[in-house]
Amino acid sequence: MMHPADTLTIKTELVEPNDTNVLGNLHGGKLMYWMDICSALAATRLSHAPCVTASVDNVSFKRPIKLGEVVSVRASVSRTFRTSIEVFIEVFAANMYTGQEEKSNQAFYTFVALDAEGKPALVPQIEPVTEKEKVLFEGALRRRQLRLVLAGKMKAQDANELKEYLFQDNK
Amino acid sequence: MMHPADTLTIKTELVEPNDTNVLGNLHGGKLMYWMDICSALAATRLSHAPCVTASVDNVSFKRPIKLGEVVSVRASVSRTFRTSIEVFIEVFAANMYTGQEEKSNQAFYTFVALDAEGKPALVPQIEPVTEKEKVLFEGALRRRQLRLVLAGKMKAQDANELKEYLFQDNK
Amino acid sequence: MMHPADTLTIKTELVEPNDTNVLGNLHGGKLMYWMDICSALAATRLSHAPCVTASVDNVSFKRPIKLGEVVSVRASVSRTFRTSIEVFIEVFAANMYTGQEEKSNQAFYTFVALDAEGKPALVPQIEPVTEKEKVLFEGALRRRQLRLVLAGKMKAQDANELKEYLFQDNK
Amino acid sequence: MMHPADTLTIKTELVEPNDTNVLGNLHGGKLMYWMDICSALAATRLSHAPCVTASVDNVSFKRPIKLGEVVSVRASVSRTFRTSIEVFIEVFAANMYTGQEEKSNQAFYTFVALDAEGKPALVPQIEPVTEKEKVLFEGALRRRQLRLVLAGKMKAQDANELKEYLFQDNK
Amino acid sequence: MMHPADTLTIKTELVEPNDTNVLGNLHGGKLMYWMDICSALAATRLSHAPCVTASVDNVSFKRPIKLGEVVSVRASVSRTFRTSIEVFIEVFAANMYTGQEEKSNQAFYTFVALDAEGKPALVPQIEPVTEKEKVLFEGALRRRQLRLVLAGKMKAQDANELKEYLFQDNK
Amino acid sequence: MMHPADTLTIKTELVEPNDTNVLGNLHGGKLMYWMDICSALAATRLSHAPCVTASVDNVSFKRPIKLGEVVSVRASVSRTFRTSIEVFIEVFAANMYTGQEEKSNQAFYTFVALDAEGKPALVPQIEPVTEKEKVLFEGALRRRQLRLVLAGKMKAQDANELKEYLFQDNK
Repeated sequence: MMHPADTLTIKTELVEPNDTNVLGNLHGGKLMYWMDICSALAATRLSHAPCVTASVDNVSFKRPIKLGEVVSVRASVSRTFRTSIEVFIEVFAANMYTGQEEKSNQAFYTFVALDAEGKPALVPQIEPVTEKEKVLFEGALRRRQLRLVLAGKMKAQDANELKEYLFQDNK
Repeated sequence: MMHPADTLTIKTELVEPNDTNVLGNLHGGKLMYWMDICSALAATRLSHAPCVTASVDNVSFKRPIKLGEVVSVRASVSRTFRTSIEVFIEVFAANMYTGQEEKSNQAFYTFVALDAEGKPALVPQIEPVTEKEKVLFEGALRRRQLRLVLAGKMKAQDANELKEYLFQDNK
Repeated sequence: MMHPADTLTIKTELVEPNDTNVLGNLHGGKLMYWMDICSALAATRLSHAPCVTASVDNVSFKRPIKLGEVVSVRASVSRTFRTSIEVFIEVFAANMYTGQEEKSNQAFYTFVALDAEGKPALVPQIEPVTEKEKVLFEGALRRRQLRLVLAGKMKAQDANELKEYLFQDNK
Repeated sequence: MMHPADTLTIKTELVEPNDTNVLGNLHGGKLMYWMDICSALAATRLSHAPCVTASVDNVSFKRPIKLGEVVSVRASVSRTFRTSIEVFIEVFAANMYTGQEEKSNQAFYTFVALDAEGKPALVPQIEPVTEKEKVLFEGALRRRQLRLVLAGKMKAQDANELKEYLFQDNK
Repeated sequence: MMHPADTLTIKTELVEPNDTNVLGNLHGGKLMYWMDICSALAATRLSHAPCVTASVDNVSFKRPIKLGEVVSVRASVSRTFRTSIEVFIEVFAANMYTGQEEKSNQAFYTFVALDAEGKPALVPQIEPVTEKEKVLFEGALRRRQLRLVLAGKMKAQDANELKEYLFQDNK
Repeated sequence: MMHPADTLTIKTELVEPNDTNVLGNLHGGKLMYWMDICSALAATRLSHAPCVTASVDNVSFKRPIKLGEVVSVRASVSRTFRTSIEVFIEVFAANMYTGQEEKSNQAFYTFVALDAEGKPALVPQIEPVTEKEKVLFEGALRRRQLRLVLAGKMKAQDANELKEYLFQDNK
């Protein structure tokens, strides 16, 4: 069985003039584009099939990334369900002059792998190894429930992991 | 006071080869890029100041959008808070041959308007008029609570609107 | 029968660093590219078939559009002939800080709709409703004559509407 | 005094997937973008100053240019007026396999050169040498009149060269 | 038999904001992209077949090319071997204000022409005419040997022209 | 002192339609663009200063990389000289369906780091650790000599390491 580290995909980008918005910072939409490509590749490393984006969880942007900073997008599969693959993505930005790297934001993208007819394909499971991977693996249940509740496909009352996470003090 | 319709911003795009992924469909990351630009412009129409993306709520993609389809992104401000602006975005895709347009997905992006020093600026309020606008305006409270809870800045116990939404049968 | 308003296509763009020329203004060629896409989509809304650009009438650029301005391209079909579709395009540019929008320029693009074999297809007629639409509809005759005269396919002596427009004081 | 040939600017492009429209042909808007860049450079070679597009005369597209064809855009100054520069552009497309080159279309773009304050600058005159250059030089007068008439800045009755061209049989 | 001049391909580009790196100069990678396209077209003019890049010889960049400079890439076939085509490329950069053009760098790219099955195709020979063309034609032998030696496909001892060039004073 | 591994920079890309040439394979120029960005970032990780490309050594392309393949560019500093930084780059291409990764090509790019006035800056040394790193470190001397000889800045007779490499059987 594959481990999350086997799917690690790194995409390093320099923020160039072409990537900036009117304020001279990295365009938020451009960053989400890079995150989408990088995480799709992580999903592909597991599924060995083309993957299409099914959903993107809440993403928040803490601080602007400036022209000339170096962006590292690091994505690896956190958990899989029957035909869907959740990928955990961390974005780091480094000042070129100091080399100091700071975490900029993180996100979860979910993909569906497609078979030769373009239908959703069964995907192999993944086995978490490190403590961090195990936490991400466990949390995938409640994140999936939240997606289903927000999409109106599940009642919040039935979303046990989500409820427990929201209302227990183990948070 | 401005109304949501005053901020309506429409961005129509044709899915060209340059926009497609390996499967010949619109690249998910490209669509999110278009949504980001369109919604930032809606926020700007209210704030009269440059706006930076603060967060993107859960987005799900229902069906692939094909090469040659016509994509309409329609964004308008749904509610504002002290220094943040929530924008509601709907994406429609139309088959060129039939002209039949179908809703593809929707999303909420949140922006912060910046003043001349690049600090968050106070933003004017907006007044909903239609029934749909009012529902979006009301829902903004619980969506904001969900963002804060997910970011670890609010306890779910204190998120009254969110709790009510999740666990009452008025859903 | 369709009306011009049924074909209205709006493409809103923010002028970003990527779109500027050496002077920091919107690249003229980039604007014509946006106008081409937007007007092709308006033609497609009428014809329900892929449309290729047949000609672009004289376009003049009154004032530079600056980095950070918001450009709205609005296109709708002004008239159709047997197999060609004339589209009227207006371009507006707005200052982000004042929200004040100013008309930047206008143009007429002509398209040919193609059938499944790539041959010109017959296109449906369009019925103007407003006063402005009627003026555009009427003027299409002389603009077409001017195109034919410039292409050496019609003698100016036979271009009655063109002659009347140029030399009568109803101009 | 410079001659048109001194300003000749050639831009050769291969039509790649990135340049095509939904039909697999060169995007009309992309071609106009290339024409704009190429002709601006021809104007710059005369003026030694940044040039902005003032107008584009009627352009017609005779035949689609296909993926894999080689496009040569050739631009040179045809005439100058006090602060404006008219550039004549020819576009050729060649089949890669036969090497056979065919003229695809032609156009006239007009530019204004800017001085250090961004105001229109006086531009040097140009002296036509070949027969073709002389014909282009002479025709510039009536093309300018047509631009002024279409812009409502000149009465057709006063446009002598235009009238003569349209209604004499020397056409 | 064709001559190098028959394959001359010129690609003129203006360095726009979109082409610059963090220092505001032309991106080195972008220049190599332009050189690749331009030289592939020169090879195509000889072979009348699609050409793929087989190798790029040592390229050095003498001075930065600045935003607003005009870059001319000029490529022509220098020699052919059985199934490969060597193209000589010179890059010139001109200051827009002075018009003064300076050679920026030069390179040799080698291409393989492909037949209908995607296999390497025999390519016609080329006949040098000018003194410069003859020097380039002769030098192609030792450049080819250097490529083969660097790729471990030839022993330096057998590379006669390369040895002579490196160690004779006719250099 | 830093080690090569401290500068490792990975750029993963999916070959999308936008990246392909007329044959549907990855554009050679596009690959060199990705290699340039990735290796400049590796150089920056050592120098903590903006780096400009000084030269690119002979690059050869063994096999076409196809649409839908996953390209990994991996760059790390191999050696530094007084003001220049040599970066070793390996390119791998993987079939999405099998996950099988194959080395596509390799290259050496040389950069110069710039100080605040844009002058070449002294760069720190790097210490190779693994056997492979030591071989790359040693070979940098002769690669530098070859660059200088090809640029006419050194006589081949004085290029001891190059001569030894070319003509000894330790090759």
